[in-house]
Amino acid sequence: MTIMPVVISADIGGTNLRIGLIDQKGNVLKKIKLPSHNGNLLEALIDAITELITPETVGISLAIAGVVDRKKGQVIHSPNLQEAEGINFIEALGNRFSLPVIIENDANAAALGEHWAGAARGYESAVMLTLGTGIGGAVIYKGRLLEVAAELGHITVEADGIRCLCGNNGCLESYASARAMVTRVVDALEKGEESLLKNCCDGNIYKITSEDIYHYALEGDTLARETLKNAGRYLGVGIASLVNIFSPEAVVIGGGLIGAWNILVEEAKKEAQKRAFNSLMENLKILPAQLGDDAGMVGAASLVFRQ
Amino acid sequence: MTIMPVVISADIGGTNLRIGLIDQKGNVLKKIKLPSHNGNLLEALIDAITELITPETVGISLAIAGVVDRKKGQVIHSPNLQEAEGINFIEALGNRFSLPVIIENDANAAALGEHWAGAARGYESAVMLTLGTGIGGAVIYKGRLLEVAAELGHITVEADGIRCLCGNNGCLESYASARAMVTRVVDALEKGEESLLKNCCDGNIYKITSEDIYHYALEGDTLARETLKNAGRYLGVGIASLVNIFSPEAVVIGGGLIGAWNILVEEAKKEAQKRAFNSLMENLKILPAQLGDDAGMVGAASLVFRQ
Repeated sequence: MTIMPVVISADIGGTNLRIGLIDQKGNVLKKIKLPSHNGNLLEALIDAITELITPETVGISLAIAGVVDRKKGQVIHSPNLQEAEGINFIEALGNRFSLPVIIENDANAAALGEHWAGAARGYESAVMLTLGTGIGGAVIYKGRLLEVAAELGHITVEADGIRCLCGNNGCLESYASARAMVTRVVDALEKGEESLLKNCCDGNIYKITSEDIYHYALEGDTLARETLKNAGRYLGVGIASLVNIFSPEAVVIGGGLIGAWNILVEEAKKEAQKRAFNSLMENLKILPAQLGDDAGMVGAASLVFRQ
Repeated sequence: MTIMPVVISADIGGTNLRIGLIDQKGNVLKKIKLPSHNGNLLEALIDAITELITPETVGISLAIAGVVDRKKGQVIHSPNLQEAEGINFIEALGNRFSLPVIIENDANAAALGEHWAGAARGYESAVMLTLGTGIGGAVIYKGRLLEVAAELGHITVEADGIRCLCGNNGCLESYASARAMVTRVVDALEKGEESLLKNCCDGNIYKITSEDIYHYALEGDTLARETLKNAGRYLGVGIASLVNIFSPEAVVIGGGLIGAWNILVEEAKKEAQKRAFNSLMENLKILPAQLGDDAGMVGAASLVFRQ
């Protein structure tokens, strides 16, 4: 009987913890979702690993929202997950379960996941953008993760543009993220612009989400459509710069906003086509991510198998 | 007696041909400059190589302004050097002199040169910007050239900005290159703006160069100073994006404009400091290139020695 090795892999976000059993083809065999770890991250992790562990388990991997020190197995800086900053995961989990432990930044892990078993499979070079509250990024180069900051949401698209949370003005993230779209809609409604979105969320415009904007856009609401198209246009500006820099074979777009693909990303494609070098756009594929919320978990696991 | 191997290396621009003998430390032992090759590029090359060749010569390298196919030893596309497009240099020179021939894009070669024997020496990661008529770019990653388009002059800094020659709007190159500065000055003078630059070039404002702008800036001319500072500010916007992407140890700036370092680049440093992630700026060095016009020749030679 052949033994099929598996990895226990967790994706640790600000409040959610997703953890699963991943096989060597990138399949998720089993999955646990904890809506909250109640601030006791390490305990929650140990409980979940104990539940999942099998004799075939060859390692543990963690995808973490933050800047990580891969060698030390520690989180250096994580604004959304401060409790993780003190923990040495290699010691705390590795010793406990006698298994190798690998940690990676979650955006990087998601890119690795899409490259291993998702939309970027088979491409030697790819740029990955994750559109959520902010915009995350990662780059695949010669089939491997490019080990650079890759803060692709924080390239400037308008030198004197909107102030970004990072301190810069005019970041891509300030124009094409969910947060950017919601801000734009709320501003417009506060100024009295006509839109069906006024009726959204029982009339509480401060509860509007990017999903609501997409929903109203499909119903033909002008403000919602214009907001999505404007975000898409800026996304295209950003993609064009990234194409001129990285000449990738593929740009893979994931995150909560890809539900709005047919409006948002189609606009982005059109804009990128107008702007980037023709010779670089010719063979470029712009593709939706395939693994959804599992990407980080799957990608982190790939690092154990490739060790 | 130890044999000290040397490489014959040429930097082939639109009209100039520079060719020299490079030793394995990156020193230029001998150098020929041909102001023009009169359209007979291959003949000029063969003559120069014949003049330079010694028994210690272990290879020939060419840095060429254009998109090159390294494997085939051919130029795929070169707007400024069309006569090079048909030539198979590996066959034409390699067979003739019985030596290996390597070709590389000139901006990449210059970055390799600065990394091997110039300002970027000792840095594992660096972004190189060459400020001339346009803006060229290259990236060093883990001590090697990142093999991507690296068209760093063609990242967007103003989404609805000045139309660039590449077809995009708002490219860095359209704000921070010599061409951009000259255009800005001529526009201002045409509109009647007061400036000592009116008296430049025997009153023919269409002959003003970026060197003139720098010269008048040093004399305190407001238009000249503002033009340099504006270009520097946009250069800083571009550098900030590149720092957030590549988290390099150094940014090396070369090209004709670095004479104006104390105005142009100091402004760029200030702007980048305001914009890029603090954690990435902390240890970043922004340095002037050291090899001047020899960088491409030296860098191309390094590829022969490292083979």
